[in-house]
Amino acid sequence: MSDINESFGLAVRRRRVDLGLSQEELADEAGLHRTYISLIERGLRSASIETIIKLAKALRTTGSQLLQNVEGQIDGQ
Amino acid sequence: MSDINESFGLAVRRRRVDLGLSQEELADEAGLHRTYISLIERGLRSASIETIIKLAKALRTTGSQLLQNVEGQIDGQ
Repeated sequence: MSDINESFGLAVRRRRVDLGLSQEELADEAGLHRTYISLIERGLRSASIETIIKLAKALRTTGSQLLQNVEGQIDGQ
Repeated sequence: MSDINESFGLAVRRRRVDLGLSQEELADEAGLHRTYISLIERGLRSASIETIIKLAKALRTTGSQLLQNVEGQIDGQ
Protein backbone atom coordinates (compact mmCIF):
# COMPACT_ATOMS: atom_id res chain seq x y z
CA MET A 1 0.00 0.00 0.00
CA SER A 2 3.00 2.34 0.09
CA ASP A 3 2.19 3.30 -3.52
CA ILE A 4 -0.65 5.35 -2.06
CA ASN A 5 1.67 7.31 0.21
CA GLU A 6 4.14 7.85 -2.63
CA SER A 7 1.39 9.04 -4.98
CA PHE A 8 -0.02 11.37 -2.35
CA GLY A 9 3.45 12.74 -1.60
CA LEU A 10 4.01 13.39 -5.28
CA ALA A 11 0.66 15.18 -5.59
CA VAL A 12 1.55 17.41 -2.63
CA ARG A 13 5.02 18.15 -3.96
CA ARG A 14 3.76 19.00 -7.46
CA ARG A 15 1.11 21.32 -6.16
CA ARG A 16 3.56 22.99 -3.75
CA VAL A 17 6.12 23.55 -6.49
CA ASP A 18 3.41 24.84 -8.86
CA LEU A 19 2.52 27.42 -6.22
CA GLY A 20 6.18 28.37 -5.78
CA LEU A 21 6.17 27.45 -2.10
CA SER A 22 9.11 26.01 -0.17
CA GLN A 23 8.53 23.09 2.19
CA GLU A 24 9.00 25.53 5.04
CA GLU A 25 6.37 27.93 3.70
CA LEU A 26 3.91 25.07 3.20
CA ALA A 27 4.65 23.82 6.73
CA ASP A 28 3.96 27.28 8.17
CA GLU A 29 0.71 27.69 6.26
CA ALA A 30 -0.53 24.20 7.15
CA GLY A 31 0.56 24.36 10.80
CA LEU A 32 2.78 21.31 10.36
CA HIS A 33 6.52 20.73 10.82
CA ARG A 34 8.80 21.07 7.80
CA THR A 35 10.34 17.68 8.51
CA TYR A 36 6.88 16.12 8.41
CA ILE A 37 6.16 17.75 5.02
CA SER A 38 9.40 16.25 3.73
CA LEU A 39 8.42 12.76 4.99
CA ILE A 40 4.93 13.05 3.47
CA GLU A 41 6.30 14.20 0.11
CA ARG A 42 8.66 11.22 0.01
CA GLY A 43 5.83 8.79 0.82
CA LEU A 44 7.41 7.86 4.16
CA ARG A 45 4.37 8.81 6.25
CA SER A 46 0.69 8.00 5.77
CA ALA A 47 -1.22 11.28 6.12
CA SER A 48 -4.37 11.28 8.25
CA ILE A 49 -7.56 12.84 6.94
CA GLU A 50 -6.90 15.84 9.19
CA THR A 51 -3.43 16.30 7.71
CA ILE A 52 -4.77 15.87 4.16
CA ILE A 53 -7.28 18.66 4.72
CA LYS A 54 -4.71 20.97 6.40
CA LEU A 55 -2.33 20.45 3.47
CA ALA A 56 -5.11 20.95 0.92
CA LYS A 57 -6.11 24.29 2.49
CA ALA A 58 -2.52 25.50 2.52
CA LEU A 59 -2.18 24.38 -1.12
CA ARG A 60 -5.42 26.23 -2.05
CA THR A 61 -7.08 23.04 -3.18
CA THR A 62 -9.30 20.40 -1.57
CA GLY A 63 -8.56 17.03 -0.03
CA SER A 64 -10.82 15.38 -2.58
CA GLN A 65 -8.85 16.97 -5.43
CA LEU A 66 -5.56 15.72 -3.95
CA LEU A 67 -7.06 12.22 -3.62
CA GLN A 68 -8.26 12.34 -7.21
CA ASN A 69 -4.64 12.76 -8.28
CA VAL A 70 -3.68 9.76 -6.15
CA GLU A 71 -6.53 7.63 -7.51
CA GLY A 72 -5.57 8.57 -11.06
CA GLN A 73 -2.11 7.17 -10.39
CA ILE A 74 -3.04 3.98 -8.57
CA ASP A 75 -5.92 3.00 -10.89
CA GLY A 76 -5.22 -0.12 -12.87
CA GLN A 77 -2.74 -1.55 -10.38
CA MET B 1 -10.31 19.27 14.01
CA SER B 2 -12.49 16.43 15.32
CA ASP B 3 -15.34 17.72 13.11
CA ILE B 4 -13.42 16.23 10.20
CA ASN B 5 -13.29 12.79 11.79
CA GLU B 6 -16.96 12.98 12.72
CA SER B 7 -17.95 14.02 9.21
CA PHE B 8 -15.85 11.29 7.67
CA GLY B 9 -17.32 8.71 10.04
CA LEU B 10 -20.81 9.82 9.13
CA ALA B 11 -20.04 9.58 5.41
CA VAL B 12 -18.73 6.03 5.89
CA ARG B 13 -21.71 4.99 7.99
CA ARG B 14 -24.23 6.44 5.52
CA ARG B 15 -22.64 4.74 2.57
CA ARG B 16 -22.35 1.43 4.45
CA VAL B 17 -26.02 1.53 5.48
CA ASP B 18 -27.07 2.50 1.93
CA LEU B 19 -25.29 -0.63 0.70
CA GLY B 20 -26.98 -2.75 3.37
CA LEU B 21 -23.65 -3.82 4.88
CA SER B 22 -23.03 -4.55 8.56
CA GLN B 23 -19.89 -3.15 10.21
CA GLU B 24 -18.55 -6.69 10.22
CA GLU B 25 -19.14 -7.14 6.48
CA LEU B 26 -17.48 -3.82 5.74
CA ALA B 27 -14.56 -4.76 7.98
CA ASP B 28 -14.12 -8.07 6.14
CA GLU B 29 -14.26 -6.44 2.71
CA ALA B 30 -11.85 -3.67 3.67
CA GLY B 31 -9.44 -5.93 5.55
CA LEU B 32 -9.89 -3.92 8.75
CA HIS B 33 -11.11 -4.86 12.24
CA ARG B 34 -14.80 -4.35 13.05
CA THR B 35 -13.88 -2.42 16.20
CA TYR B 36 -11.81 -0.03 14.10
CA ILE B 37 -14.76 0.54 11.73
CA SER B 38 -16.90 1.39 14.75
CA LEU B 39 -14.31 3.88 16.04
CA ILE B 40 -13.97 5.50 12.60
CA GLU B 41 -17.75 5.81 12.18
CA ARG B 42 -18.02 7.54 15.56
CA GLY B 43 -15.25 9.99 14.68
CA LEU B 44 -12.97 8.59 17.39
CA ARG B 45 -10.09 7.76 15.04
CA SER B 46 -8.47 9.80 12.28
CA ALA B 47 -8.30 7.56 9.20
CA SER B 48 -5.05 7.49 7.23
CA ILE B 49 -5.07 7.87 3.47
CA GLU B 50 -4.50 4.11 3.19
CA THR B 51 -7.54 3.39 5.36
CA ILE B 52 -9.66 5.91 3.44
CA ILE B 53 -8.86 4.15 0.17
CA LYS B 54 -9.45 0.65 1.62
CA LEU B 55 -12.83 1.77 2.98
CA ALA B 56 -13.75 3.48 -0.29
CA LYS B 57 -13.03 0.33 -2.31
CA ALA B 58 -15.10 -1.81 0.06
CA LEU B 59 -17.89 0.80 -0.17
CA ARG B 60 -17.67 0.77 -4.00
CA THR B 61 -16.82 4.43 -4.13
CA THR B 62 -13.61 6.48 -4.18
CA GLY B 63 -11.64 8.20 -1.47
CA SER B 64 -12.13 11.50 -3.25
CA GLN B 65 -15.91 11.01 -3.23
CA LEU B 66 -15.88 10.27 0.52
CA LEU B 67 -13.79 13.40 1.11
CA GLN B 68 -16.18 15.48 -0.98
CA ASN B 69 -18.93 14.54 1.47
CA VAL B 70 -16.70 15.60 4.35
CA GLU B 71 -15.78 18.89 2.67
CA GLY B 72 -19.44 19.59 1.98
CA GLN B 73 -20.11 19.31 5.69
CA ILE B 74 -17.16 21.28 7.03
CA ASP B 75 -17.36 24.14 4.51
CA GLY B 76 -18.35 27.40 6.04
CA GLN B 77 -17.05 26.57 9.51
